[in-house]
Amino acid sequence: MSDAVAEINATIELESPALSAALSPLGRRAALPDDILSQSYEARDTTYNGTIGVITDGRGGALPLPSIAEVLGALPEADLNRALLYSKVLGIPEVRDAWRRWQRRNVAESKVSSLPVVTDGLSHGLSLCADLFGGEGRVVAVPAPFWGNYKQTFGTRTGARMVSAPSIRDGRFHCEVIEEALDGAGLQEGEPAVAILHFPSNPGGYSLTANERLQLRASLLRIANQRPLVVVCDDAYAGLVYEEDIPRASLFWDLVGVHNNLIPVKVDGATKEFSFFGGRVGFLTFPFETDSALFAALESKLGSLVRSTVGSPVAATQIILLQALRRSGVAGEVEAVRKTLAERYRVIREALDRVDPELLRPHPFNSGCFALAELPEALGVTSSAVRLHLLEHLDTGVVSIAPRYLRVAYCSVDKEQLPALVENLEAGIRAVVR
Amino acid sequence: MSDAVAEINATIELESPALSAALSPLGRRAALPDDILSQSYEARDTTYNGTIGVITDGRGGALPLPSIAEVLGALPEADLNRALLYSKVLGIPEVRDAWRRWQRRNVAESKVSSLPVVTDGLSHGLSLCADLFGGEGRVVAVPAPFWGNYKQTFGTRTGARMVSAPSIRDGRFHCEVIEEALDGAGLQEGEPAVAILHFPSNPGGYSLTANERLQLRASLLRIANQRPLVVVCDDAYAGLVYEEDIPRASLFWDLVGVHNNLIPVKVDGATKEFSFFGGRVGFLTFPFETDSALFAALESKLGSLVRSTVGSPVAATQIILLQALRRSGVAGEVEAVRKTLAERYRVIREALDRVDPELLRPHPFNSGCFALAELPEALGVTSSAVRLHLLEHLDTGVVSIAPRYLRVAYCSVDKEQLPALVENLEAGIRAVVR
Repeated sequence: MSDAVAEINATIELESPALSAALSPLGRRAALPDDILSQSYEARDTTYNGTIGVITDGRGGALPLPSIAEVLGALPEADLNRALLYSKVLGIPEVRDAWRRWQRRNVAESKVSSLPVVTDGLSHGLSLCADLFGGEGRVVAVPAPFWGNYKQTFGTRTGARMVSAPSIRDGRFHCEVIEEALDGAGLQEGEPAVAILHFPSNPGGYSLTANERLQLRASLLRIANQRPLVVVCDDAYAGLVYEEDIPRASLFWDLVGVHNNLIPVKVDGATKEFSFFGGRVGFLTFPFETDSALFAALESKLGSLVRSTVGSPVAATQIILLQALRRSGVAGEVEAVRKTLAERYRVIREALDRVDPELLRPHPFNSGCFALAELPEALGVTSSAVRLHLLEHLDTGVVSIAPRYLRVAYCSVDKEQLPALVENLEAGIRAVVR
Repeated sequence: MSDAVAEINATIELESPALSAALSPLGRRAALPDDILSQSYEARDTTYNGTIGVITDGRGGALPLPSIAEVLGALPEADLNRALLYSKVLGIPEVRDAWRRWQRRNVAESKVSSLPVVTDGLSHGLSLCADLFGGEGRVVAVPAPFWGNYKQTFGTRTGARMVSAPSIRDGRFHCEVIEEALDGAGLQEGEPAVAILHFPSNPGGYSLTANERLQLRASLLRIANQRPLVVVCDDAYAGLVYEEDIPRASLFWDLVGVHNNLIPVKVDGATKEFSFFGGRVGFLTFPFETDSALFAALESKLGSLVRSTVGSPVAATQIILLQALRRSGVAGEVEAVRKTLAERYRVIREALDRVDPELLRPHPFNSGCFALAELPEALGVTSSAVRLHLLEHLDTGVVSIAPRYLRVAYCSVDKEQLPALVENLEAGIRAVVR
């Protein structure tokens, strides 16, 4: 281990023993080397600057193919250059600043958060969390059912051990779900753990009530009294909440600064929040001051991991997102998308309310992109059989999640079609049961 | 290990025992699960399609924020939708097809290559190679000096063991460099190994002569007689060759199909080749038929790794690249960039030829973005000392590579400035030596 890495690790150990304990072996090894990036940075103001391995016009501007520049012709010249050239490894500073302002709308000044680090979409943010905090044998708790990619990202890739417990019990969210999942994991005393929490959830489409938030936080604090706990707050569907009494703010803000052993990490981005799926702009935010030694150490680790997985994040789509973030009316544009989805939500809610509960029991849902429903065990059919019947006979596609869940992504279905889709669902189940 | 993974591994073992032996533990574990992606695919033609977790207009089109759609307003509507929505995990099919045609310009029909897999830039392609073929203790041979990110990507991230040997000996490329690096590595009989080859090189700016290519290939074949050898052909600077007698085609094509144990993998993309640094569109290409069982197995593994590192590759910049690839005149646009760099190359060549060889000895260079020069050992100075002196006293930035190399990125310097930059370099060395 080089001196630079040892120094960074010592800083983390000093500033946050819990974070230090939670680092994976790769997380401990990672640090940006003092190499071409830092040498280029030091030479940034020289007249004769031969440090940067980028093809430019010789004066710092891009030298694009006309056919590529034309597509981005709506951009102001300075932005066009930034879209075409490399982003800094942690992201374009103006984009990081603008996203931080966006994230902190209506958030109290007292809540500490770092400048976000740009990632190539939210999965990349999750994957960086897995690199930092996963690793062989690390216990990662997730409420069930959960998005399958968590298992790939943490389990398959890093060797972490996924543990789970049901998120819905007797038709309500189970606020001790992480405690229950960890209880069965056989953790040693003080052994660090990771939790992934996702509100609005996938596949559940559920966001917590104010009271459930308090209960969940209390449960996480009980864990933090025993061990370092990294809580990855997957805010992919942030803001897409359709009931008035459900808080819209990220759970991250409820967990910032409440316990030394409790380390929330916010994973968010433009994918769903700005309806820019193809842009792959995500962000990772930590509950630390941007100008702290601790965050500088984390930036070095993240810079090293970003560099060795994707080189640098996509500049072009960061700059496209920036055009939106600069607009005073952007919150209204985001709200318009939410309203469109809210209409679909009302329609599918009503349709599902009419379904015979002996055939299908919707889980509580109030937000996000999905409705999740469970086939009663007494029916004796699998969700897979229902899915295949719907595909083959009823011109209808839904996702089956073993053993008895069906997920409807109403976010991509016209509201006029949703009643028929739910009717088909019911008819399909009847047919398979028979 | 699931049945699906076992089946995929069995296919690889049957079709290419060498590739199978070269897989890392993660490479063996990886496979796309039969989950939401495959269920969405099966439902793609249904009228009532509630499988896809993407916010759409309800009829498969994007539902973008106006401020984001406007930036991409130059795109035809169908392309705009594709730019805003998710790419398939292995890339947008039309982009993969178009890049394959671009890669295979002037390549004989008999040379087998797969459809390329899209990555988020070339570093991501390298990182996927590291995931597939790296891992704890795996020996990875690279000619020295080499780009530092290889070490981060293969060594720091996966625990691979980097070995090296000097690429230039007595002022000429050393064609047995990989053999020499592996000879000292203490490999077991038949133990697989990885080599990374980079032409035009970074930091060397060197491409092989036709004769050197034959010698290098012969050397790699001697290794392949002993063990499976994955040769990662890093073609970042493909085509940027400035001397008439130097072949421009990728080394990959020289290695396709020459030995069962020799597995070339082509890493290339738009970053430098299309001067689209901020786009992060890269490709991974294998020496197998696209419709073979072997390539299908690899696609499953790569799909799983792409999904768990970045979710899916950036769609927006794939579509921007596609606009260029569709143009009949794009080769001319690419050639125009090459010519601009070729002019800078001539200028810095001449300037370096005038430098006192007692002070600085340029390595052979003929291509790419860089000129690399070595400080004679007899001077008793480090490249780091020279770099700092240039920064502090001569308004000049170059990159220092330990112990005695200086790299000039002439690709980003106006040709009018290059003679002064080289004069400053010489003056700086003189000052430090004194």
